Amino acid sequence: MNATIPRVVIVGAGFGGLEAARKLAKLPVQVTVIDRKNHHTFQPLLYQVATAGISPGEIAAPIRWILRGRKNVEVLLADVQGFDLERRKVLCPDLAISYDYLIVAAGAGHSYFGHDEWEPMAPGLKTIEDALEIRRRVLLAFELAEKAKLAGEPELPLNFVIVGAGPTGVELAGTLAEIANNVLKHEFASIDPSRTKIILLEGGPRVLPAYAPDLSESAVRQLEHLGVEVRTSALVTNIEPGAVWIGSERIPASVVLWAAGVQASTLGKQLDAPLDRAGRVMVNRDLSVPGHPEVFVVGDLASLKDEHGNLLPGVAPVALQEGRATADNIKRDLQQQPRKDFHYFDKGSLATIGRAAAIAQRGRIHISGYFAWLAWLFVHVFFLIGFRNRIIVLIQWAWSYLTYERGARLITGKTDLPGWQGIEDESGEPALQKTR
Amino acid sequence: MNATIPRVVIVGAGFGGLEAARKLAKLPVQVTVIDRKNHHTFQPLLYQVATAGISPGEIAAPIRWILRGRKNVEVLLADVQGFDLERRKVLCPDLAISYDYLIVAAGAGHSYFGHDEWEPMAPGLKTIEDALEIRRRVLLAFELAEKAKLAGEPELPLNFVIVGAGPTGVELAGTLAEIANNVLKHEFASIDPSRTKIILLEGGPRVLPAYAPDLSESAVRQLEHLGVEVRTSALVTNIEPGAVWIGSERIPASVVLWAAGVQASTLGKQLDAPLDRAGRVMVNRDLSVPGHPEVFVVGDLASLKDEHGNLLPGVAPVALQEGRATADNIKRDLQQQPRKDFHYFDKGSLATIGRAAAIAQRGRIHISGYFAWLAWLFVHVFFLIGFRNRIIVLIQWAWSYLTYERGARLITGKTDLPGWQGIEDESGEPALQKTR
Repeated sequence: MNATIPRVVIVGAGFGGLEAARKLAKLPVQVTVIDRKNHHTFQPLLYQVATAGISPGEIAAPIRWILRGRKNVEVLLADVQGFDLERRKVLCPDLAISYDYLIVAAGAGHSYFGHDEWEPMAPGLKTIEDALEIRRRVLLAFELAEKAKLAGEPELPLNFVIVGAGPTGVELAGTLAEIANNVLKHEFASIDPSRTKIILLEGGPRVLPAYAPDLSESAVRQLEHLGVEVRTSALVTNIEPGAVWIGSERIPASVVLWAAGVQASTLGKQLDAPLDRAGRVMVNRDLSVPGHPEVFVVGDLASLKDEHGNLLPGVAPVALQEGRATADNIKRDLQQQPRKDFHYFDKGSLATIGRAAAIAQRGRIHISGYFAWLAWLFVHVFFLIGFRNRIIVLIQWAWSYLTYERGARLITGKTDLPGWQGIEDESGEPALQKTR
Repeated sequence: MNATIPRVVIVGAGFGGLEAARKLAKLPVQVTVIDRKNHHTFQPLLYQVATAGISPGEIAAPIRWILRGRKNVEVLLADVQGFDLERRKVLCPDLAISYDYLIVAAGAGHSYFGHDEWEPMAPGLKTIEDALEIRRRVLLAFELAEKAKLAGEPELPLNFVIVGAGPTGVELAGTLAEIANNVLKHEFASIDPSRTKIILLEGGPRVLPAYAPDLSESAVRQLEHLGVEVRTSALVTNIEPGAVWIGSERIPASVVLWAAGVQASTLGKQLDAPLDRAGRVMVNRDLSVPGHPEVFVVGDLASLKDEHGNLLPGVAPVALQEGRATADNIKRDLQQQPRKDFHYFDKGSLATIGRAAAIAQRGRIHISGYFAWLAWLFVHVFFLIGFRNRIIVLIQWAWSYLTYERGARLITGKTDLPGWQGIEDESGEPALQKTR
């Protein structure tokens, strides 16, 4: 009877892809989940890895483990290169996978607005590898400044510039300020980590533009309270090793982090469908691709407007609900019932800023500060994939909340920093001496 | 008065270097700890990271954090290249550090017995980076086997070959067997992880040669009970992609791990002192270097025999006691008292084999199995650097003991495996199809 069981291939094991797989596991279909990583990454907490609060293993879980025990689901580690829509095949470098239904949930990466040459100097934050690279750079900047100071060199600037004041940029800025002011304060013999400058640059007129204006203002106050310098309408025009330019103004930067633009996966281009400006696939109301009812797009790669004409944001709840709706529509197909249009149910939005600092918005209810942060904590730990990880993350957070410590401050990989000369010239004759 | 305070430079923040720094912090000296990593690695538990049991952050802690609050201790991230013994300087690429006392605790790496070309195919386990590379290869081997099977290809072998049956080799073999038989059993749709073969090769006549013969025999029984194939007097003569050779016998290997030889840090060569065969510095009985009473060597880099003429082993307790003894001798110098010779106090040895499997030896007391494992657990968690990590590690272990789960199974970095072609030829027409 196997020949009659429809095969659903899901590309991408983010929130949308995993949710679809979970729901489809209960139907008489064969499901194949393909991802180029072996793990699902809980992206809302990636900034905690980048800022050394928690370890990668605590916000990432093997896809196989998440989907274990579902007999009709198989998981494949492979890099999808494209699709053969006519012959209904997903194309990987060394194999092709046939489908009856295809769900493309390939997500989005960074957009450097046509300046891809900025990427090595200003890494973004989408994967575990990105987070580890940012962690490495941030921690190294302090180490190199200490080394220069111990060698009697002129003080190196400790400027962290974050480009883009959406949720990720705000989280990074707030958390880095806390690290500089609290965590590292007592650990350096020579430099004073609290002289670190955290500069948050936003090209638009306000931070967290997806939130109501009063919450944007509250977020700025909370950021400034943490010591972050917030600059809006500050459009970055160039990034070079050690500096960011805003028009003719040069801002020295030990580390630059990119949290500005989003570019949908290039797999969208292969779906014979119209794309929006960010490369997202403009899907039908049932999330299928125009002309291909057997192909769906969910999550950050899908471009769909709500009843009020607003584009649905690229956040986890949208992806989850889209994944679920797509599984439901496949079920309706199998039962020969008509499909339903997708409607996003907005449970509200939360953005964290730092220790006990956050904003929350649900309809007309706007909350700031401690209670917003508690809500954020609850929601994020609750949705964290994997029971074990939830406990560990809670303990780690309780611990770092009480002690101001961050336990995962490891520099792994190389110990040089792109664009940093480190020690630049010589002076005095201290015990540590520059030799070249 | 600063000019008269002696400056002690410690190279390496392993067990020996850190212990010396802690003791010296209480004396009227200025201490500089130099390491090329920003973190101390708890090496006895590295195999747990390599086998995905715990995350790197749980067995590594920033050196600055460990030594925080000690006003006369500074920490420097730098790569020591050598020494100017005459001018009493430690030489780094871009700076030189003066010392009155020097403690070299630079440890040891792997020896491939003159076959350094084997290293890319058979990584060893000394650093966090090593552990992550081993984890990546082990997990990838299962993923690639699953992919081949799903594509209808002939089964790929799942042979893990571990070279060297000292404590690290035995730990890796036992833990890998458990993963294959328990952890991964229910997660693959096509392959059967329990058909994995774990082969432990030892060139000498018995495993764990540092232990008594009856304990070696017990270790073999415990390993075989876990499904490990143990082969002694099996000297590896060649390693090539996908295989290990023992004379004319070719053993197919998906992953090869190296736990055989130890080679002391090359910094030993720069100390104008005789070296033993493994490159260790043959120190005086007070751990100083012949002809240089102001220079000490401690830990795996030091070569010293006990009263019975046996070389002290390269284990943490030896390094710790040597670090302490060196700090004490510097104190005696400052108080113009004669130095004391170093005597190692052997509290016994422990080697773990797997879940509730271990051996322990203290003088004539030999223990095997569950109680040895409990002792091992207690000692290792107790000595783990950092209170927070101890709790987290205990919870993780309790969790994985009860559930057979291993939480840190992330493949980060590249998703190819050296020496593995993956899918080699084509057959049938399954849903997954090889395309080239």
